[in-house]
Amino acid sequence: MNSRIAIPGLSRVGFQGEPGAYSEEAALRLLGESVATVPRATFQAAFRAIPDGAADAILVPVENSLAGSVVRVYDLLLESNLSIIAEYILSIEHHLIGCPGARRDEIRSVASHPVALAQCERFFEANSLLRRIPAEDTAGSVREVLARGDTSCAAIAGRRAAARYGGVILESGIQDNRENFTRFVLLVPEPGPLAGADKMTIAMRLAHRPGALAASLEPFARNGVNLLKIESRPIHGRPWEYQFFLEVESEAPQKLQTAVTELRRCALDVRVLGLYQAARGESPSSAA
Amino acid sequence: MNSRIAIPGLSRVGFQGEPGAYSEEAALRLLGESVATVPRATFQAAFRAIPDGAADAILVPVENSLAGSVVRVYDLLLESNLSIIAEYILSIEHHLIGCPGARRDEIRSVASHPVALAQCERFFEANSLLRRIPAEDTAGSVREVLARGDTSCAAIAGRRAAARYGGVILESGIQDNRENFTRFVLLVPEPGPLAGADKMTIAMRLAHRPGALAASLEPFARNGVNLLKIESRPIHGRPWEYQFFLEVESEAPQKLQTAVTELRRCALDVRVLGLYQAARGESPSSAA
Repeated sequence: MNSRIAIPGLSRVGFQGEPGAYSEEAALRLLGESVATVPRATFQAAFRAIPDGAADAILVPVENSLAGSVVRVYDLLLESNLSIIAEYILSIEHHLIGCPGARRDEIRSVASHPVALAQCERFFEANSLLRRIPAEDTAGSVREVLARGDTSCAAIAGRRAAARYGGVILESGIQDNRENFTRFVLLVPEPGPLAGADKMTIAMRLAHRPGALAASLEPFARNGVNLLKIESRPIHGRPWEYQFFLEVESEAPQKLQTAVTELRRCALDVRVLGLYQAARGESPSSAA
Repeated sequence: MNSRIAIPGLSRVGFQGEPGAYSEEAALRLLGESVATVPRATFQAAFRAIPDGAADAILVPVENSLAGSVVRVYDLLLESNLSIIAEYILSIEHHLIGCPGARRDEIRSVASHPVALAQCERFFEANSLLRRIPAEDTAGSVREVLARGDTSCAAIAGRRAAARYGGVILESGIQDNRENFTRFVLLVPEPGPLAGADKMTIAMRLAHRPGALAASLEPFARNGVNLLKIESRPIHGRPWEYQFFLEVESEAPQKLQTAVTELRRCALDVRVLGLYQAARGESPSSAA
């Protein structure tokens, strides 16, 4: 179960995308419908919304269960001084959205972001006469279809985008894989102590020698801390040298701190990117 | 230095994309200009080209130094019975490509794949009146611009796409980051023994308990094998459970085999995806 959280002083949350985007949906579910959402065109602009004074926090995707990590966000997170204070797992359901009055059988072209188009491959195989139109944004493709008012055009996006722009859902749940989840993290400049925090995201670099990674993971094993995810990322400007990102979990937060203290003795540039409460029960029904 | 390789019986190589794509360029550089290239619309179709009898091998991207891993390829590799027998590192240079006779200052719109558009953010900031047109393919966007013959439209793609469709380069090297490399792997159904093989790609699953990953990396440390890359991927149908991909290297191939034998004692479903010679000297000049 994703828990809704309340954070004092957090009234405006930035996200990447257009109004109606999946990120906005996740932000409103995590923080409640009364939070103001601040759309930004790019991830970089979303990260700038806090220093620019336009937002108190930002909610950004870090991983999709089908498409993998959103590496651009990890890079920006590392460049920023923001910290993760919460995560939210959203079940992604793609719908075919058209203009009011449009009939499913008169649709001739379907616009969406190429990743969303690719996640509906079976739909396009079964409807092979439909023309695929790539777009920069899922919600933005709905906005454009509705603005043109052409009932032969549709877009693929989430339910909130249909509601936001007055579109109608012509066919629902058209993605190939029902288990399509995106994990978002909430970032703030100055996190206070968090009750119930049991998960930590860590960035580190390692000396390029045999055994360096095995040695760096021993503090977690020794303290009974569970490693949930590990990823190495090339370091910009030093091709094929790697930065590591770890996600670890323990029911005893003190063990996380002890493991990190021990980690600092064997790894370079260890940085805790956040200590927060893990979202639980990642099934389509519980994510809703 | 990327070495060109000659493999008996390999005369047709499949790739994902349109003629002129970066993948085709990498295939011709690795295998020589006399190899026949077989374009396929999707990664899935490229993987099918071998069982369908249309190709003897396929060349697919696995990692970009800016955008991260191509997770779809890892998933398809795991589902297939193909093995990696070579890798090639291509320096990615994006160019602004237009119709013959077009002038740089009359261009009004620029089409390309959203990832390529995003890698040229500074170019678009400096030319803020240009309209960005998302497309499903870099080379395909060049083909379309040339087919329309509209001198106010341009596309972003590689040099080979310009040559393939008769376009002219209006501005070269417009990507934000010069260190933009893509690593490709060559896949075949039945690899023979390879001289000079020093690098191995391995897939494994682990029991979900503290210390499992640290224990699985010990065989490599013990044998002095260098871990180049590690990545955990969600397992389809089991959200947030993870499959691991490792890349390891040793000057003594026997040590790689010993480490894998020891690994099989502590990890589940260990599969060697390939044993091959590492590409060296990944700088723009040496990759050319």
